[in-house]
Amino acid sequence: MSGRLEPGQVALVGAGPGDPELLTVRALKRLRQADVVVHDRLVPAAVLDECRPGTHRIDVGKAPGAHGRGQQAINELLIQLAREGLRVVRLKGGDPFVFGRGAEEALALAEAGIRYEVVPGVSSALAGPAAAAIPVTHRGLASSVTIATGHGAEAGEEPDWAAMAATRGTLVFLMGVAELDHITRLLRSYGRSAAEPAAVVEWATTPGQRCLAGTLADIAARAAQAHIAAPAVLVVGPTVALGQVLGEVLGEGPRSQPAVAERSHRAVALV
Amino acid sequence: MSGRLEPGQVALVGAGPGDPELLTVRALKRLRQADVVVHDRLVPAAVLDECRPGTHRIDVGKAPGAHGRGQQAINELLIQLAREGLRVVRLKGGDPFVFGRGAEEALALAEAGIRYEVVPGVSSALAGPAAAAIPVTHRGLASSVTIATGHGAEAGEEPDWAAMAATRGTLVFLMGVAELDHITRLLRSYGRSAAEPAAVVEWATTPGQRCLAGTLADIAARAAQAHIAAPAVLVVGPTVALGQVLGEVLGEGPRSQPAVAERSHRAVALV
Repeated sequence: MSGRLEPGQVALVGAGPGDPELLTVRALKRLRQADVVVHDRLVPAAVLDECRPGTHRIDVGKAPGAHGRGQQAINELLIQLAREGLRVVRLKGGDPFVFGRGAEEALALAEAGIRYEVVPGVSSALAGPAAAAIPVTHRGLASSVTIATGHGAEAGEEPDWAAMAATRGTLVFLMGVAELDHITRLLRSYGRSAAEPAAVVEWATTPGQRCLAGTLADIAARAAQAHIAAPAVLVVGPTVALGQVLGEVLGEGPRSQPAVAERSHRAVALV
Repeated sequence: MSGRLEPGQVALVGAGPGDPELLTVRALKRLRQADVVVHDRLVPAAVLDECRPGTHRIDVGKAPGAHGRGQQAINELLIQLAREGLRVVRLKGGDPFVFGRGAEEALALAEAGIRYEVVPGVSSALAGPAAAAIPVTHRGLASSVTIATGHGAEAGEEPDWAAMAATRGTLVFLMGVAELDHITRLLRSYGRSAAEPAAVVEWATTPGQRCLAGTLADIAARAAQAHIAAPAVLVVGPTVALGQVLGEVLGEGPRSQPAVAERSHRAVALV
């Protein structure tokens, strides 16, 4: 067990995919020890409500993956708050080191001589599909999983599309909802079949979760029609069809997170 | 918030990477609600100690990724325990849906009409590198991360090596410690540079954690010399060198999990 968050220290904390019960035990401790929580825009209120009453919350108004001067300003804010002797939690959706710019903030803190720790979180890239009963790996269906972002070119994080498409594995895109048409066209142009199963999961693991399944050919249009918005993950590959068997990919309408008792076997057609 | 684990139900729970504080809040609840915990061999005792005293623990003696008749027997055990009216936790290292055979067990439960839920965990594939201060993505260094296993051929999970090697991203291998020589040779044969940074992290996030850094050319020999054993993750890519700057890749000797106060900036040479 590690120690407490002390005055003048920063914890870079993964908030997990959205459900407060998917915070780690350590993340919850840090939220309750914090004097100030600096959080991204899309961290759900239910997660922030785990802070002590009166904790200063700063929304840095940054969607996951935003960068540039915004990131520099955030780095400076963290350093300033730590130098004021506060216990600082920097709360990021998912995991800080999976397209979370966590290492950029860690480097800035290290250079400033600020003590920090990294508290990993459940990544939305894996738990998002799981919330729709989609395993990212499965024997005989997917022997690898590759995670990338949907806004790579803009953010200096353009993946190698040809190589990604050529893996025999599941592909997961974070922050891809505005680029669904672009991503799915690229994957098809590099050889992925138009008929390959694909799904988007919006607000995964929250009461507002919506899942939508289709194929590489139609998922972008379906998502646009249903007004799917960030945060959402796109998952592409044969394991998406397992969602059908596992009975959780329920279609376009808003739906609640199923409780334990509701998770029995249901055969539901992919929409 | 979801409900309780009821008699006759099964929770497929991710145990996270090793540190009990990296269990999710829900995983901890489920452990404390369980009548019986069916766990893999490499789940640390400190995690199992979170169960209520007297909870029946069944070690199914299965390293992560084992398969075949062993898996069938585990499926049948879970069904039998649920039919006896017990509250069953099936505890798996990392995340149940990331090379955890979670979907195979979910399918078997669904077919048997047993109610179940999946509780995602912090994957060792991401938190293992993070515990050595290695971010799996970083702007300008890695625009994707691909997760595969080291024993793919044997388990019917052989990844596409050429495509994996061709991604411009970080590569992470779970359960690869016995195959380090094979994996690193294959990656080099498909074009990854012999000088590319690589690291192994053994028993990540536990008090016995060891990290070892090197290159694709020498990491297998270094790991063999240091008697690195499962559970360990191999991570390959330029972000491994960030571990140097972030001051956590400390070399071959056994070391403790650093507490918050120890995680300040340290410039440490890669071994």
